[in-house]
Amino acid sequence: MTNKNPMKQNQLAFPEWLQGRVRHVEEVLDDLLPSADALPARLHEAMRYAVLGGGKRVRAALVYAAGQACPVSGSVLAVEASLDRAAAAVELIHAYSLVHDDLPCMDDDTLRRGRPTAHVQFDEATAMLAGDALQPLAFDLLASMPIAPALIVQATQSLARAAGSQGMAGGQAIDLFSVGRALSRDELQTMHSMKTGAMLACSVALGGIVAGASSATRQALDAYAQAVGLAFQVVDDILDVTADSASLGKTPGKDAAENKPTYVSLLGLSEARAFAGELREDALAALAPLGDAGSRLAELADFIVLRDR
Amino acid sequence: MTNKNPMKQNQLAFPEWLQGRVRHVEEVLDDLLPSADALPARLHEAMRYAVLGGGKRVRAALVYAAGQACPVSGSVLAVEASLDRAAAAVELIHAYSLVHDDLPCMDDDTLRRGRPTAHVQFDEATAMLAGDALQPLAFDLLASMPIAPALIVQATQSLARAAGSQGMAGGQAIDLFSVGRALSRDELQTMHSMKTGAMLACSVALGGIVAGASSATRQALDAYAQAVGLAFQVVDDILDVTADSASLGKTPGKDAAENKPTYVSLLGLSEARAFAGELREDALAALAPLGDAGSRLAELADFIVLRDR
Repeated sequence: MTNKNPMKQNQLAFPEWLQGRVRHVEEVLDDLLPSADALPARLHEAMRYAVLGGGKRVRAALVYAAGQACPVSGSVLAVEASLDRAAAAVELIHAYSLVHDDLPCMDDDTLRRGRPTAHVQFDEATAMLAGDALQPLAFDLLASMPIAPALIVQATQSLARAAGSQGMAGGQAIDLFSVGRALSRDELQTMHSMKTGAMLACSVALGGIVAGASSATRQALDAYAQAVGLAFQVVDDILDVTADSASLGKTPGKDAAENKPTYVSLLGLSEARAFAGELREDALAALAPLGDAGSRLAELADFIVLRDR
Repeated sequence: MTNKNPMKQNQLAFPEWLQGRVRHVEEVLDDLLPSADALPARLHEAMRYAVLGGGKRVRAALVYAAGQACPVSGSVLAVEASLDRAAAAVELIHAYSLVHDDLPCMDDDTLRRGRPTAHVQFDEATAMLAGDALQPLAFDLLASMPIAPALIVQATQSLARAAGSQGMAGGQAIDLFSVGRALSRDELQTMHSMKTGAMLACSVALGGIVAGASSATRQALDAYAQAVGLAFQVVDDILDVTADSASLGKTPGKDAAENKPTYVSLLGLSEARAFAGELREDALAALAPLGDAGSRLAELADFIVLRDR
């Protein structure tokens, strides 16, 4: 495991810190996912394929950065081990949602992170079951965090709601029902705050819960998360128009081709960019009460808004 | 809500007790599922359609009967409210698994409990997302049980493992991979103990966890659950051959037609019946340490083995 010491982590420049966290959570995921040798082997292979195939690991990074933004009372080692499990849990939920989203009955995508999607690599039924099995594993990981049971219960509730019908799954349903329909800006924002924002906000919240943050800190984290969550989606919509397949690792221009409403189709490219910039300012302003401890979260906000893939 | 008083429940004959519990958990589910008016309405409609469309509610009944088998220390009201949530949680997981199992990429079934399956009534994407959203709702319900957080964490872990790749989802994967293959009796037993047995056993375990059962009681419950879980599947295989569509509420003879291995294809009808009888004896023997408190569980074992649908 890399960069275990939080002091060392704080001395790193952002790109090295992020790279270290990405590498670390991939080791954690590799370790916590069932082995491809364990029965049912083909299901476990598909789960590992879906989760370990790269990705930006933004959600995991948000868990770590939020945990780091809070003063730790109690065992630093227990908090770090718990942040690992929380970071892995949000990545598992994210990975399952991509697998199901790529299925023929949903987006029918064949390319993800530059590789065949799970149902192309395996088959539809295996891909669906792999997604189905990733979801409870996420809750299992939270339940095994070495922190106070009351905090585990809060974390479970946060993840369950972020993943559920009034969070991510609900946002995907609204997205599905809105293909070819004109959405208002408010409707688009509701859809994205559920589809993408809920899990990004949950990632930030889990960092705070695991570290035992005060309610004032949790409020600051929440305000930050709302702004960053929305910014993430606005930038995604911009990249769907401006990026090419190679740098994006998935099929670009698909949303526009399917007449899906996006921030770009609604606001135009230049106003969408301005909106992303405003949200970045909001995110940074929300971090003010945390002082220097919030610097990784600030850097992550910049990373999310200024990324090119 | 019906039959709230555990003393009153104990005086009822089994059919009235079971009917009361079924009616009660359906009220609980109706109450805890998101309203069909709440956004996204179509997703919530599909979730409600999948969960509230009848069913035997065997898993819920096992939660209640196991809870009743344990001496309650602490608030009876808190335990009863928690048993309601645990019973609802196992029914949500069961309902989601049926929705996904019925999809074209899996069993491609059009009839379930005498009604069109969810993807026929709605569409494939909505059915898949409804299943996806039922799963976190189950964990949310456990997290909101009014009992000690440490018990909630145990319950969460139990449900997560029963639903996951080494439980129900894993069993479905093995079932899928074994179509047209000859399975040994051991392989068939492993598949069923994961696919159906894990969630039945979890239902019994949750009753014990919620009631704060001693480890001796939990062991007795577990032995009972193993036998009943397997008996349930053996009887299912028998009914797939002997029952008609009207009483079964689903398409019978499908497993045999698809060359899926079953206890009947492996052992023959009469030996399969004898095996179910043996498992019933094992279940009853496991309950001996619980004395009279285990009588509802004993009646449920009889109900499961002697049912005709």
